Amino acid sequence: VIIGGGLGGLFCAMTLRDAEVDVVVVDRANHYLYQALIYQVATAELDAGEVSMPIRERLGRQKNTYVVMAEVTCVDTELKQVRLSDDRALDYDFLVIATGLEVNYFGHDEWQPFAPTLKTLRDAVDLRERILSSFEHAEALRDPSCCPELTTFVLVGAGPTGVELAGALAEMVRDTLPREFKRFDPTTTRIILAEAGDRVLPSFSPEISAKVLAKLRKMGVEVRLNSPVDLIDAKGAVVAGERIASDNVIWTAGVRATPTGEAAGLEIDAMGRVVVGPDLTAPGHPDIYAIGDVAHIDREGGSLPAVAQVAVQTAKYVGHSIIDRVESKPAQPPFSYYDKGYLATVGRNYAVLETANGRVKLAGYLAKMIWAFIHLLYQMPNQDKTTMFVTWTWSYVTHRLGSRVIIGRKSRP
Amino acid sequence: VIIGGGLGGLFCAMTLRDAEVDVVVVDRANHYLYQALIYQVATAELDAGEVSMPIRERLGRQKNTYVVMAEVTCVDTELKQVRLSDDRALDYDFLVIATGLEVNYFGHDEWQPFAPTLKTLRDAVDLRERILSSFEHAEALRDPSCCPELTTFVLVGAGPTGVELAGALAEMVRDTLPREFKRFDPTTTRIILAEAGDRVLPSFSPEISAKVLAKLRKMGVEVRLNSPVDLIDAKGAVVAGERIASDNVIWTAGVRATPTGEAAGLEIDAMGRVVVGPDLTAPGHPDIYAIGDVAHIDREGGSLPAVAQVAVQTAKYVGHSIIDRVESKPAQPPFSYYDKGYLATVGRNYAVLETANGRVKLAGYLAKMIWAFIHLLYQMPNQDKTTMFVTWTWSYVTHRLGSRVIIGRKSRP
Repeated sequence: VIIGGGLGGLFCAMTLRDAEVDVVVVDRANHYLYQALIYQVATAELDAGEVSMPIRERLGRQKNTYVVMAEVTCVDTELKQVRLSDDRALDYDFLVIATGLEVNYFGHDEWQPFAPTLKTLRDAVDLRERILSSFEHAEALRDPSCCPELTTFVLVGAGPTGVELAGALAEMVRDTLPREFKRFDPTTTRIILAEAGDRVLPSFSPEISAKVLAKLRKMGVEVRLNSPVDLIDAKGAVVAGERIASDNVIWTAGVRATPTGEAAGLEIDAMGRVVVGPDLTAPGHPDIYAIGDVAHIDREGGSLPAVAQVAVQTAKYVGHSIIDRVESKPAQPPFSYYDKGYLATVGRNYAVLETANGRVKLAGYLAKMIWAFIHLLYQMPNQDKTTMFVTWTWSYVTHRLGSRVIIGRKSRP
Repeated sequence: VIIGGGLGGLFCAMTLRDAEVDVVVVDRANHYLYQALIYQVATAELDAGEVSMPIRERLGRQKNTYVVMAEVTCVDTELKQVRLSDDRALDYDFLVIATGLEVNYFGHDEWQPFAPTLKTLRDAVDLRERILSSFEHAEALRDPSCCPELTTFVLVGAGPTGVELAGALAEMVRDTLPREFKRFDPTTTRIILAEAGDRVLPSFSPEISAKVLAKLRKMGVEVRLNSPVDLIDAKGAVVAGERIASDNVIWTAGVRATPTGEAAGLEIDAMGRVVVGPDLTAPGHPDIYAIGDVAHIDREGGSLPAVAQVAVQTAKYVGHSIIDRVESKPAQPPFSYYDKGYLATVGRNYAVLETANGRVKLAGYLAKMIWAFIHLLYQMPNQDKTTMFVTWTWSYVTHRLGSRVIIGRKSRP
């Protein structure tokens, strides 16, 4: 039983395709979501269907695999059972926990209604409608300058999501929207990126962080470093002591592990991740694996980061490990992570790239091309790359946004 | 002031592009919706962004045109004012009512919660999630045959929407889904198309209706003619006296005019449409026009049908008529409709086509190619035809559905 149909769950099930095992993949959504591009759904560059794929489409034709859309209510490690929200129980010989991360308001869950986040497809679609509606409301005002909060964006957290969203928003208000509004001037939009730490993209080297900071500022983003958020409410946010009136506070900061591991009584770290040994099983539970973002995997000076490569590599390792055990072959050597480096993008023409050894550092247009190439060809296990390629090329050439439609609430009867 | 950003409102505003007038287009949605393809959103063939386009994208760059997303609360024909939901008032010299149709449960509004319809983009997206979720629930059951209501579809009304949706659903359960489900057999899905009248597609000739009926039956759709629906409730529907257990009753039957005309105190017909004279103004209100589906325009033996061509032709006529009046030119001759005929499609490879004079009648693959060509090139005033073309071609060749993702409800905090 694999809990979670993200990158890890998907790759693990695919590795087990030809093995003499029955695989069950459980996820509460019907789709796999390509997290790296989700910000493009929020900024109307891509449609929801272009960054996601039904799990069933990828795995449904695999003969030994059964896909269930259901919520896991509890894992009983004694009975070796996973219980589902519809009262069914799935017996397992091996359990793979691949449930990933969820958003974390750092003890301030009361901020959640005022600061939507960008984690699920629903989040992205809701955020898009919220952003577009703000501009529509500003245009409908007699005097748009009377309500600056409508078009003030406060992004909390300058990790990859915050940086990429800020870059995309800045281009949207500068390049795409101005020609289409009559009363409201989209270039007056304020985009504030508040970061508690002292640099943006802390997972990169300080050199790259400095370049990205300069690029964001050049694009008109107000980046505020060393600026923790003290409060978020219906009127906006208090950033490093200053109150900023904003209808659009967006939470791009913290994450924590989903509670599956904790609920199963497994050992977890401070982030809630399941602590696993070198063979990726939970100590004392040789039949329970954790992979990807939800796993705490030690490495020199800390643990492995929550990136796609870790999910893919751990998933394949665990898949092969299960095959070996079923076939009574000798155990594999301990998991070792091959770090290929990091990528992030800022707007249409700029990305940064850094290899793990720090030898290659690239910022600018070339890095952006590599970014697009990697995302398009390697990471998205979706056969429909053609549509996405056309959409990207089209919006790149025309500066148009493909999906700028507000679907809105329920229609009236 | 043009109320409504559908096909009529859009074409009317575009006709006025170079005129010495100020144009305001008001719509409660931010998008134009291409109604003819909306069933493809419900059956996951197209994504929401592919059948719709922000009104602002098409008209926002037009110098004399101001686009407002707002609800019209009332039209004051004395003061010549349109009042909006945000308490603003728009003064007009000429008013164009282009608000189209809305769904009509024929006095049974209590059926509405149990029988969603297919009119707005929200409807289409909700219906898609409902259909896909039914199949997921059936697959998650220990014994899918215990709950036939999950995968019994009752479509009420065999007009173009009912027929096209039934055809698309039949292909989905027969061709696309079977390979991906393990416990539930999608081919056991029942699709019942209930029609109170004695033939499908009553706007076509009886000859074409008979061909479409045969095609639908061959595809496995249970078409029931002379079968009015007596009741719809949480458990299903009663069709011609027979109770059918169904979780998926879909209302594809009646429409009536939106109430804008009635609220303004104008003369309306039994369907609620604004009765207009040969110059498309409301009698006694030379400054108020009605166009497209919301207008009652007499012709021999009845009134003009609610089709795209009428909307486009009346919109252009009214645009030119306003230009002539502003420029004090002599009035145009009365509006006359050039009827090009009808088109409808049943599944991937079959469409029917009939010219107005009845001389050309075509059914089959060639008609489908013409159908695709016309929709792609002529009717959708969207510059992004490339993406749609690629999506269509791709899903045609692969039998895959591009947008089979359930976005779902709000994520948990």
